[in-house]
Amino acid sequence: MAVYTDVGEGELAAFLDAYEIGGLLSYKGIAEGTENSNFLLHTEGGSFILTLYEKRVETSDLPFFLGLMEHLAARGIACPQPVRRRDGAMTGPLAGRTAALVTFLEGIWMRRPNVAHCREVGVALASLHLAGADFAGHRPNALAVPGWQTLWENSRERADEVEPGLGAEVESDFAAVAAHWPKELPGGVIHADLFPDNVFFLGEKLSGLIDFYFACNDFYAYDLATCLNAWCFEKDFSFNITKGAALLAGYQSVRPLSTAEAQALPILARGSALRFMLTRLYDWLTIPDGPLVKKRDPMEYVRRLRFHRQVSTPADYGLQ
Amino acid sequence: MAVYTDVGEGELAAFLDAYEIGGLLSYKGIAEGTENSNFLLHTEGGSFILTLYEKRVETSDLPFFLGLMEHLAARGIACPQPVRRRDGAMTGPLAGRTAALVTFLEGIWMRRPNVAHCREVGVALASLHLAGADFAGHRPNALAVPGWQTLWENSRERADEVEPGLGAEVESDFAAVAAHWPKELPGGVIHADLFPDNVFFLGEKLSGLIDFYFACNDFYAYDLATCLNAWCFEKDFSFNITKGAALLAGYQSVRPLSTAEAQALPILARGSALRFMLTRLYDWLTIPDGPLVKKRDPMEYVRRLRFHRQVSTPADYGLQ
Repeated sequence: MAVYTDVGEGELAAFLDAYEIGGLLSYKGIAEGTENSNFLLHTEGGSFILTLYEKRVETSDLPFFLGLMEHLAARGIACPQPVRRRDGAMTGPLAGRTAALVTFLEGIWMRRPNVAHCREVGVALASLHLAGADFAGHRPNALAVPGWQTLWENSRERADEVEPGLGAEVESDFAAVAAHWPKELPGGVIHADLFPDNVFFLGEKLSGLIDFYFACNDFYAYDLATCLNAWCFEKDFSFNITKGAALLAGYQSVRPLSTAEAQALPILARGSALRFMLTRLYDWLTIPDGPLVKKRDPMEYVRRLRFHRQVSTPADYGLQ
Repeated sequence: MAVYTDVGEGELAAFLDAYEIGGLLSYKGIAEGTENSNFLLHTEGGSFILTLYEKRVETSDLPFFLGLMEHLAARGIACPQPVRRRDGAMTGPLAGRTAALVTFLEGIWMRRPNVAHCREVGVALASLHLAGADFAGHRPNALAVPGWQTLWENSRERADEVEPGLGAEVESDFAAVAAHWPKELPGGVIHADLFPDNVFFLGEKLSGLIDFYFACNDFYAYDLATCLNAWCFEKDFSFNITKGAALLAGYQSVRPLSTAEAQALPILARGSALRFMLTRLYDWLTIPDGPLVKKRDPMEYVRRLRFHRQVSTPADYGLQ
């Protein structure tokens, strides 16, 4: 659910006056994304997504996010294209927020992705990494190892409320990350949140990637490890090596991994699972309950961590 | 906010197989309506609204609601048109609910309607009354006087929690309704919930009426009185007689009121305000609080009741 800010017809008309997208036909708040307020607009010029940035997004980061989407779209990546105003700007003020308009992508995100979808995601992720290589913007990953440590310091004491023993258990992951986290690997702009709800398909063909609001500079293979976590575990938290192999093969068909990247996959996957466990744990402990707020269970990532802890080689993920 | 039930791509594809609307391009849960779960679909055949009926709607009433929409659309009323399946049915099962597909109407609902909008609503309401006159279905108004009394019996004891003295104050409205409620007036199918969020405009031209899920048989003038409450009070709860006059003139340009209907307007408007106050009061007292649940304040209708109590003639609403 995500319409935190309603938009009136008068203020919207004034906002849209700055754009050349034809007359407004309709707008509906949509229940997608968890960070911002999103509206689907129909205008005489087509369909668009209007996003009002809420408190979790730093507006100083918007030129990076929107500039990246424009850069990638110009290089053939199927992603929302920011619509520029007549004055050239990519954002404007609306309802007390900073807002942007991007093109609407048709497509459906897969609640139950199959092996073919996993392969397509691998191909798309590698294509995104190559297309972003010459992007001029730079944004450090706020949710890299030091960020995890801050989240952990703010959650550790209460971690056992989620499951007894969780605090001590997760300490072993921090120890592993401290000992084995790679110092140098090929890197550049990564998506950093390429979960199934951010990837659209028409049938088994990938039709678009959305939600670049965690994009940042980090290791490419870390992005790939996040996709292993996001796409290749079944609902019972078992790792599906056939999906892993498809994802990795799809990726390598566009951008082959170096030996160092391949060797680092187990620790990167463990670190990535730790990262998503930590943000969920923090939200779980700090956001009040409500009938329409569906907090995501940190245990889903503890279950993944338990898998990664016993992995010994990248072949365990299906790397060939 | 209203997506109570998520729909997976597999079950949606199976549901849509029964329709002839072309391939599915996208679907988004939309934050409109408060009773049901609604999705905006793009298909190769156009745009549609998919509704999953939640617990407040009796599925036995759906043939009335959907049949009425089909009947009205066939008579030129701009309302969503139910899409029939290949087997002729207007509903099917989806995600554990009964679901229906209707055509999408372009248009924008007015957070701040002006006088011209009020006139258009009057014209559209009268046109709806005429177009529905030969509809074969019949559904008693569950929220008529006996229904109000049930709501009141379940809320009265705690009414003073909302405002001290509210319980005694509202008793006077029940006394007035008991003494003056009309026994006979022209009637037929009414919309019964024609609030601004159920009426779409393109500019100042009305483009559609939606949400027929309170439609029932009752006095036509009661429907008009509900529109006076819904459209002609300002944000400070003052009655805007210019808007009232425009609404009533628009209505009478299509269907002139009888003397009995005109004389009954004050008690009908008071009763209608009582009805919306009571459902809001009941929800206010019984639905738990939550960060994304915006319960509607019953006092907004107590303020309207206070206006209606001191009205003496229909001219006070702008009737000419």
